Amino acid sequence: MRTIRSIRGLQAWRRKHENQQIGFVPTMGALHEGHLSLIRQARKHCSMVIVSIFVNPLQFGPAEDLGRYPRNLKADQQLCREAGVDLLFVPSGEEFYPQNFQTTVRVNRLSEHWEGEARPTHFEGVTTAVTKLLCLVRPNQAYFGQKDYQQLLVIKQLVKDLNIDTKIVRCPIVRESDGLALSSRNCYLSEIQRRQAACLSVALRQGVKSIQLGKRQVSLIQREMKKMLSQSKEIAIEYLAVCEAQSLKPLTVAKGSMVLLAAVRLGHVRLIDNMLVKV
Amino acid sequence: MRTIRSIRGLQAWRRKHENQQIGFVPTMGALHEGHLSLIRQARKHCSMVIVSIFVNPLQFGPAEDLGRYPRNLKADQQLCREAGVDLLFVPSGEEFYPQNFQTTVRVNRLSEHWEGEARPTHFEGVTTAVTKLLCLVRPNQAYFGQKDYQQLLVIKQLVKDLNIDTKIVRCPIVRESDGLALSSRNCYLSEIQRRQAACLSVALRQGVKSIQLGKRQVSLIQREMKKMLSQSKEIAIEYLAVCEAQSLKPLTVAKGSMVLLAAVRLGHVRLIDNMLVKV
Repeated sequence: MRTIRSIRGLQAWRRKHENQQIGFVPTMGALHEGHLSLIRQARKHCSMVIVSIFVNPLQFGPAEDLGRYPRNLKADQQLCREAGVDLLFVPSGEEFYPQNFQTTVRVNRLSEHWEGEARPTHFEGVTTAVTKLLCLVRPNQAYFGQKDYQQLLVIKQLVKDLNIDTKIVRCPIVRESDGLALSSRNCYLSEIQRRQAACLSVALRQGVKSIQLGKRQVSLIQREMKKMLSQSKEIAIEYLAVCEAQSLKPLTVAKGSMVLLAAVRLGHVRLIDNMLVKV
Repeated sequence: MRTIRSIRGLQAWRRKHENQQIGFVPTMGALHEGHLSLIRQARKHCSMVIVSIFVNPLQFGPAEDLGRYPRNLKADQQLCREAGVDLLFVPSGEEFYPQNFQTTVRVNRLSEHWEGEARPTHFEGVTTAVTKLLCLVRPNQAYFGQKDYQQLLVIKQLVKDLNIDTKIVRCPIVRESDGLALSSRNCYLSEIQRRQAACLSVALRQGVKSIQLGKRQVSLIQREMKKMLSQSKEIAIEYLAVCEAQSLKPLTVAKGSMVLLAAVRLGHVRLIDNMLVKV
């Protein structure tokens, strides 16, 4: 496996591999089993697999955890090597966003609510960086986890709107044995928070089950889920919604393809999770 | 020469020509000698030349001339054919910006002044459409006229910032025998306006000459140019500036690489022009 740090190096490598099927997994590092599942998916479908590691400053708010976001390149390199990655691209912030950088890519409607409301500049940071990465890597397929469901939809819309010639592949959420969705931020949880964090997926699972059993009134479904979450004193709900799965518009009556979206806080740690359900 | 109207058709054509050197000339149609000079330049450097014709609604303000912008596909096709164009791409508005379209690409600082001030959503309309076109056509080189000098800089910045793998080539302004820069909008001018419009380039030429002869005080250079323009009663100046050629920051003392930028109105017709000068 090669590690390339410069944009020019990446471009040169890419030109030497024009006729390959390129699978791309963009990450912020601190790789876990969730990322590895994306890499394995790419490995299965493509002749070459590129992983990028870039802790993208543009997608962090001023009060967020950019500075303490976990970084461990050596361990990430080892995991990528073992997973059969061909190329690890680790650009520097200075080269990715040089002094005179001044372009913003924004997906308007889909970015407005939920995570976009909680983190006002988050998605334009994501879409600006992802546009750059897709222009650089020019992958046939790029793999994103369902864990960041709104991000996945925003990126699908971006690629469609800008006619970027890459297929966006959604990969399922990987969970701990108690249901907690894997996230690089889980390491921030204290032991007691970690135990309580499992409630989030349990509540979502309950919501899914209620819908599958025929409940349709979203206010009632939400009340049930909130009740389950309220059993954990550490958890503060940010949002908990039943949405139309493509537009993310909140529903009052469950129908069609839906996604249950949730964001909670445990102390200073913010967790998101989601589940899909169809009736 | 082929004419392709669908995005899918363009993409299929492009995939069949992966190993060609593609030269691209994006236009809004109503082709004139200025466009043809871009096409000839592309023809000289590239193995395949693609021209697009798309009157991009996003780059027109609500009170602007989108509806009456000159359109003449038959004549444009003929000109392209004669100029040796390989492919004419004429997307429809409905397919280019489908109902659910919601992405905006913006180059921030460079878009703020001059044309960006006079036409607040103009450049983000240009950069959104150009990003799409570059992702679709994936040209090795794309040709833009110096006539829209600020647009040229904005697009160069866009391509650099987003790591789009296309070289942006600047082509010189083509002028009528009296100095008027060619523009599809010149057809809006009445006979009397048309005669007076020549003053614009005469004034800019005077500014350049003054600088070359050693004048450095921009206020004095501007006064001279304004005096020349004031000889035409129909002309109202919108802006007339001596700027640093890369950043477009206005100068008070002439130095280095400069561009003289001007926008004027003759009745309802708005004209822009510019000249480069170096000391």
